[in-house]
Amino acid sequence: MASHTPHPYYPRMLILDHYVPNELTTIEILILLFSTFGVLILGALFFSYQKRQSSIVGVGQQLTFVWFVLSGFIHLFLEGYFSVRNRTLAGEQTLLAQTWKEYSLSDSRYLSSDSFVVIMETITAFAWGPLAFYTAYAQYADSPARYIAQLILSLGQLYGDILYYLTTIYEGMPHCDPHPYYTYFYFGFFNMFWIIIPLVLIHNSVKNLYRGMTIAQAAKTTSKSVKTKKTN
Amino acid sequence: MASHTPHPYYPRMLILDHYVPNELTTIEILILLFSTFGVLILGALFFSYQKRQSSIVGVGQQLTFVWFVLSGFIHLFLEGYFSVRNRTLAGEQTLLAQTWKEYSLSDSRYLSSDSFVVIMETITAFAWGPLAFYTAYAQYADSPARYIAQLILSLGQLYGDILYYLTTIYEGMPHCDPHPYYTYFYFGFFNMFWIIIPLVLIHNSVKNLYRGMTIAQAAKTTSKSVKTKKTN
Repeated sequence: MASHTPHPYYPRMLILDHYVPNELTTIEILILLFSTFGVLILGALFFSYQKRQSSIVGVGQQLTFVWFVLSGFIHLFLEGYFSVRNRTLAGEQTLLAQTWKEYSLSDSRYLSSDSFVVIMETITAFAWGPLAFYTAYAQYADSPARYIAQLILSLGQLYGDILYYLTTIYEGMPHCDPHPYYTYFYFGFFNMFWIIIPLVLIHNSVKNLYRGMTIAQAAKTTSKSVKTKKTN
Repeated sequence: MASHTPHPYYPRMLILDHYVPNELTTIEILILLFSTFGVLILGALFFSYQKRQSSIVGVGQQLTFVWFVLSGFIHLFLEGYFSVRNRTLAGEQTLLAQTWKEYSLSDSRYLSSDSFVVIMETITAFAWGPLAFYTAYAQYADSPARYIAQLILSLGQLYGDILYYLTTIYEGMPHCDPHPYYTYFYFGFFNMFWIIIPLVLIHNSVKNLYRGMTIAQAAKTTSKSVKTKKTN
């Protein structure tokens, strides 16, 4: 161990010779990250407010719109950065690299380029990222694709996150600093959003699609019976 | 290496001390497996044929029904067996265990209880398995949930299979016997069904749901304008 670069990550025997400690403090990273989220949330709220009389009605739908926009940015930029730079991340000092080095205290798979994490994050960044923006747009425009996009996005996020949690929990969480701050706040709390909100939105999508398909089936039957009557 | 049980799997340094060679030959396993598939396919065809005038019209829809039923059996029984028994599989001689030992020549992660494979297969077995049967039922009954279930099932299968392929390809396929029979037939060909067919069925679901939601939106607008006229 003595010949390797010391680092604060778990498992302790992990070799990360390209690791360089963050220049920013934890507080500075969290403030920068949450300020960015704050600006994105306010921007999305402003947009959604313009459609409050038509396609984005009520607080629930406005928050859903904010969620799609925020998800899109997190997937495409934060997770996209990880996808592209994961092999050299531990030695970098950009804001996004420092954010990942801080988060990795709760999951070192982000610094060791674990194959599942890299592939799942790449799909999340470049499939679910753009889809999140499209879903926001489809909601804004009240497109018939609105709940279809919401269902695909939410199911993709949910399945990815369940796999993410369970693959390391199954191994006894060797990649996480056992301090409760990292276990419960970073690993547990941050990722829980992509379990709970997708579950709610899948339920909401299925309900709306089921209602729509019931109306469409009835409309078809009516038009058929009208046609039959005319033939008679 | 000398003190460990010899086995035919890759990577060659993998330790599988509980491994016992199969009693059945490859040909016997393949005949038993494909005979079972044959019986299931014929049974599903027989069922679908009864609905050929109503909900399961044409060869395409009949094959889709067969796919849901066959998927359901493979997920629930073959993959369910793996999910429950993966830790002791390498030493077992049941037909399902021997099938997995044969398949594992193309992917030893099934015998080493790789965390991603175990979690993904467990979700496939116990979430997508029952959902596949429900999707077959929803198609049979022409339920409004038909294309919703088809979309969720197919997306789950597709995402799981893409992760399955890419997580080992990313590592240079160290878990696969490099013989083309294992690389292309077992690993490549067998799993390719769960890429191609879900892609087709996702496209088919989205098309049908989009059409349905367009009709439902128009019906809503019509009923609104009728109401408005009456009020006037």
